[in-house]
Amino acid sequence: MGLKRASRTTLVEQVVAQMELLIETGKWSVGLRIPAEPDLVQQLGVSRNTVREAVKALVHTGLLIVRPGDGTYVSSSSGLGAVLLRRLRRSNIVETLEVRYALEQEAARLAAVRRTDEDIEVLSRCLNEYDAAAAMKDTDAYLKADLDLHKIIIGAAHNSVLKELYEHITEGVRETIGSVLDHSVLLEHHTRIHRELIQAIIDGNPDGAAQAVRDYIEASRHMLQSDNREE
Amino acid sequence: MGLKRASRTTLVEQVVAQMELLIETGKWSVGLRIPAEPDLVQQLGVSRNTVREAVKALVHTGLLIVRPGDGTYVSSSSGLGAVLLRRLRRSNIVETLEVRYALEQEAARLAAVRRTDEDIEVLSRCLNEYDAAAAMKDTDAYLKADLDLHKIIIGAAHNSVLKELYEHITEGVRETIGSVLDHSVLLEHHTRIHRELIQAIIDGNPDGAAQAVRDYIEASRHMLQSDNREE
Repeated sequence: MGLKRASRTTLVEQVVAQMELLIETGKWSVGLRIPAEPDLVQQLGVSRNTVREAVKALVHTGLLIVRPGDGTYVSSSSGLGAVLLRRLRRSNIVETLEVRYALEQEAARLAAVRRTDEDIEVLSRCLNEYDAAAAMKDTDAYLKADLDLHKIIIGAAHNSVLKELYEHITEGVRETIGSVLDHSVLLEHHTRIHRELIQAIIDGNPDGAAQAVRDYIEASRHMLQSDNREE
Repeated sequence: MGLKRASRTTLVEQVVAQMELLIETGKWSVGLRIPAEPDLVQQLGVSRNTVREAVKALVHTGLLIVRPGDGTYVSSSSGLGAVLLRRLRRSNIVETLEVRYALEQEAARLAAVRRTDEDIEVLSRCLNEYDAAAAMKDTDAYLKADLDLHKIIIGAAHNSVLKELYEHITEGVRETIGSVLDHSVLLEHHTRIHRELIQAIIDGNPDGAAQAVRDYIEASRHMLQSDNREE
């Protein structure tokens, strides 16, 4: 399991840190039932109370969840994600979207500078799927390609903090507005801008990439505003 | 104190949420000693164990700290801040800076659109202090004005999530590199770009504001690289 015996004073914190690492590195993946208390006590060489307290702390952080009569399961892969979601629930959606836009623009810019040959290949393939879905007016395939495309662009920026924040914030947006931005009346426009975005990244043109992101943000903003007016 | 009696099943979570709110809204400010356990038990109408568990959870999150033989104190005003700092400690400084740059550019852009008359007044006053400090070669006053200037710009964007993330990330940067970016060999250049940035915000020119941010980011990047080479 990769657990080591703990040795110093703040035992709970050490156990918490070890478990966090296992979770965040995916060794304990979301949905996994963690070892039973006696096993953890033995593996870690700490008291039952210490294990209990560490588990409670991680339940509070949102990484673990206790299913009474069953066991304790990994419920989220990131403490940052859990806290961020809680924070975003207290803010309005425009604020959240603006932060996402900020990260998206910089990611596009960085991707245009850092994309590897492999990134370019994956981007091109994804763009083809995107175009095909648009041509067939296949909404499900289109939304999937759209999601993939953005994931690939964030990945091509090669910045793990940016990626993590972006993914958690996107999750927060999805939780709040669902696919409000996605049932695209502006499908053609949307597709064209995304083609420009990918091309700019492939061409190694950071300003062009950031501009394309700003273009579809503008379109989304209009859509969101008209959606709000309809309510 | 603003504490209400808790009523339903997940008592610990309710108590945690109440305390978090008191802390995040500043009613329990950083440095404050929170009420003693018996007082909390009475005010909240929950058991001693529930209070203890809630406090432990908040200690783990990094909001409270226990000073044995003394009491429990508020140690951070934000759970997000505490988690973010832990996350940033595991990432390299370039990644962290890039996220800050992303937020800074968008903040400048938004500030250019949203700045109020009061924002403009404060910005102008701060710019004067900045210029004066530069003219006098007063490094301390210069760094203070620089810090203030960035705070005011982020504030003028009028987005609480952006502001909070920016401040925590800036804290993370300061923790890692101290003032490496600040002992400005490029003082004149730095001052000129900042004057341009402020002017663009006052003029309501978002593209100009974002460009100015990118200009000083470039300068900082060079500085950081040459600093690293010296080591």
